Amino acid sequence: MNIIEIIRKKRDGEKLSTEEIAFLVCGAVDGAINEAQLGAFLMAVYFNGLSHEETTALALEMAHSGEMLDLSSIPGTVDKHSTGGVGDKTTMIVAPLVAAAGVPVAKLSGRALGHTSGTIDRLEAIPGLRTNLTTAELIAQVKKIGLAVGSQTGNLVPADKKLYALRDQTATVEVVSLIAASVMSKKLAGGAEGILLDVKCGQGAFIKDLKQAKELAQIMVEIGKSAGRKMTALITAMEEPLGKAVGEGVETCEAIETLRGSGPADLVDLSLLIASHMACLGSGMGILPMTAGISTTGETPVPQQALALIETLKELLVSGAALEKFRQMVIAQGGDTKVFDNPQSLAQARFEEQFKTCKSGFIQQINAYAIGSIARGLVKNHRGGILLEHKVGEMVGKGEVLARLLSDGSDALKEAMKQIGAAYVIGDEKPEPLPVLLCPPMQ
Amino acid sequence: MNIIEIIRKKRDGEKLSTEEIAFLVCGAVDGAINEAQLGAFLMAVYFNGLSHEETTALALEMAHSGEMLDLSSIPGTVDKHSTGGVGDKTTMIVAPLVAAAGVPVAKLSGRALGHTSGTIDRLEAIPGLRTNLTTAELIAQVKKIGLAVGSQTGNLVPADKKLYALRDQTATVEVVSLIAASVMSKKLAGGAEGILLDVKCGQGAFIKDLKQAKELAQIMVEIGKSAGRKMTALITAMEEPLGKAVGEGVETCEAIETLRGSGPADLVDLSLLIASHMACLGSGMGILPMTAGISTTGETPVPQQALALIETLKELLVSGAALEKFRQMVIAQGGDTKVFDNPQSLAQARFEEQFKTCKSGFIQQINAYAIGSIARGLVKNHRGGILLEHKVGEMVGKGEVLARLLSDGSDALKEAMKQIGAAYVIGDEKPEPLPVLLCPPMQ
Repeated sequence: MNIIEIIRKKRDGEKLSTEEIAFLVCGAVDGAINEAQLGAFLMAVYFNGLSHEETTALALEMAHSGEMLDLSSIPGTVDKHSTGGVGDKTTMIVAPLVAAAGVPVAKLSGRALGHTSGTIDRLEAIPGLRTNLTTAELIAQVKKIGLAVGSQTGNLVPADKKLYALRDQTATVEVVSLIAASVMSKKLAGGAEGILLDVKCGQGAFIKDLKQAKELAQIMVEIGKSAGRKMTALITAMEEPLGKAVGEGVETCEAIETLRGSGPADLVDLSLLIASHMACLGSGMGILPMTAGISTTGETPVPQQALALIETLKELLVSGAALEKFRQMVIAQGGDTKVFDNPQSLAQARFEEQFKTCKSGFIQQINAYAIGSIARGLVKNHRGGILLEHKVGEMVGKGEVLARLLSDGSDALKEAMKQIGAAYVIGDEKPEPLPVLLCPPMQ
Repeated sequence: MNIIEIIRKKRDGEKLSTEEIAFLVCGAVDGAINEAQLGAFLMAVYFNGLSHEETTALALEMAHSGEMLDLSSIPGTVDKHSTGGVGDKTTMIVAPLVAAAGVPVAKLSGRALGHTSGTIDRLEAIPGLRTNLTTAELIAQVKKIGLAVGSQTGNLVPADKKLYALRDQTATVEVVSLIAASVMSKKLAGGAEGILLDVKCGQGAFIKDLKQAKELAQIMVEIGKSAGRKMTALITAMEEPLGKAVGEGVETCEAIETLRGSGPADLVDLSLLIASHMACLGSGMGILPMTAGISTTGETPVPQQALALIETLKELLVSGAALEKFRQMVIAQGGDTKVFDNPQSLAQARFEEQFKTCKSGFIQQINAYAIGSIARGLVKNHRGGILLEHKVGEMVGKGEVLARLLSDGSDALKEAMKQIGAAYVIGDEKPEPLPVLLCPPMQ
């Protein structure tokens, strides 16, 4: 087999065989294929795409390019992946919640990407907490307390590590098939039986278009099923930031508050939605027949079976069982439990500024991309970020505080204050509530 | 400036500024831009092309990426470039011919590429002949005898060296703008005032389509003119091999025979055509007003002024003046002049096979690509190749020898004998003569 011929085929829009894709992945890892060739291949894929068969082959070959976690000794494990949103601290809520419901959660998470922060960065805001668990540590912890969240370290998916870095360097990040193969290679190597995908769609997400989001969700579900995993994909809105905290430590603080029962409505809703689907995947209950159009406020209009499950999960949240599970995880991973006594310690920084509105009206829009990008500039050593005082749909009076900006750097704070105004649209009409779920779940 | 942004722009079909192209070329040479990024950029150019302005900027920046030959001490120097054809030994004829006419020729040549051999390989078939002249040696030789042909060595066009190698590895060779920039960067760095381009078009050339050939010729002429050079581009046919010898030493032998006045008609015609245009460029006579449709046999139908020039050149060929000039060059570059006593010594190999026709008729086609590829397999240490006994349009009887195959390897010869039949089409009708020049010269 010849890499130049493989590049030429993809350049000319031809389909690659599984053997050709295996050759490519193997050569990418062992260096037989040079980086110029990988760059050219990625760009040819940008233009001509990959079929579902090619994408599936790529994901499977990448998954098998390194170590595969063997969780067969723990039946019914579930994992979860978000394609990345602003303020998306859901993992820190749903992972302990689902574990508290008796479904084991073994999750590998990532770091900050673009304008979004990563779960690993949020967790590391807790003093002492280790995320670089070995395979053995991760499995032992799931067996003991039913929950572990580690970073993607060691010899997991080396092919994805290589291609991911090159995509970033070669302007080939936004390719649905490459995103799908990358995400799924990691999830398959992570070893869980059931995988919940939260595909974010909107101005604060990497995918802005619903059609593309559906395509991405569909192909990821197909890949997982072809590898024998139970799959559910949700496509959820990412227009305004999720919840009210955007940063790293500030998000961890909000997650703990949510586990204490006092989280913002949209975050609670999304967490219950995701947790219920994860619980279904893990308990073998089958598919939750939920429909689109769940509102951000009030009760989510879902069928009886799902409502019962959500009620159970709500109880676990209210009773403190989920919080207790999170505390067990923090202890197991060496973190300081003092944060549970004073979560606000995670939401402090040397400097703070208040951003106030210069006119009254309804908040029509809070641009999640802008807020995410500005918050990235404020965060240093997991500290700093943006705390929203109001969300879309709320009425504000002239001079009222819209957001508090925190940073250890006064220059960064000044810069952020100049930019944040552009993220807001305030008008006279009360906007329609934003939906959480943009279409029926895919399985 | 940011390379990822430059790749993204080209990926999205946007135009790059001269500054961005300079940044790219500079980064390619100093390593600031990695090979994955160069591979992705080349593939984006494959899909979205480069405008004439971008191509010109790329050629100029590449030319200036290393040393530029300064031939200002020798007024009126000319250079010549063929985009590559099978049996194209024209340089070894026209360079001494033009030099014999008093126009100084300073030429940098290349090696074998794909199915074609290179002038440097052909020259090195002459025992002792050196082509790796230093800049100083090359200039001194042109001053002394009016003629030098060297290889592209040293610090000339490092950016082209890099991109050329990467194009070969990334299936991005056949891109008109990249070919144009590569050729012209080398020609500009070569320093000649006048540049004659012979753009080969047909089944034996890298460019098979006349429209593409015209586009390539046009942009190369534009690049040269924008750098203040005098330019002429000819688009010439490359359907059957040029002349009767295909290989390395065998072609040198045919060139010497042609300089002795006994060359095949098509090779003589093309050589006179190219030499007359080169002489015009160098003497400041201006543009030769030749038209398309010059036949391969007999007199070329060109205007009076051109005819007079061609007559002069013919005389230099017949009188042996051109041959004498070539001998001076061989001596100057350390070659053994015994080859002039016995040129056939260059057309010998350990093994020889005759390829005979199994039917009688007119030769309709001799596929130059096939002949070139087969000959490449026969050549080793400049020895071996194919000698055609007949050309397209000739009548052959059953069992007549069509070609002699020479090689130092008996296995290579056996393999070649299996393949060569497919290169021939023999039929009952006498085919129309093939034109040499496919459209009017471009200036």
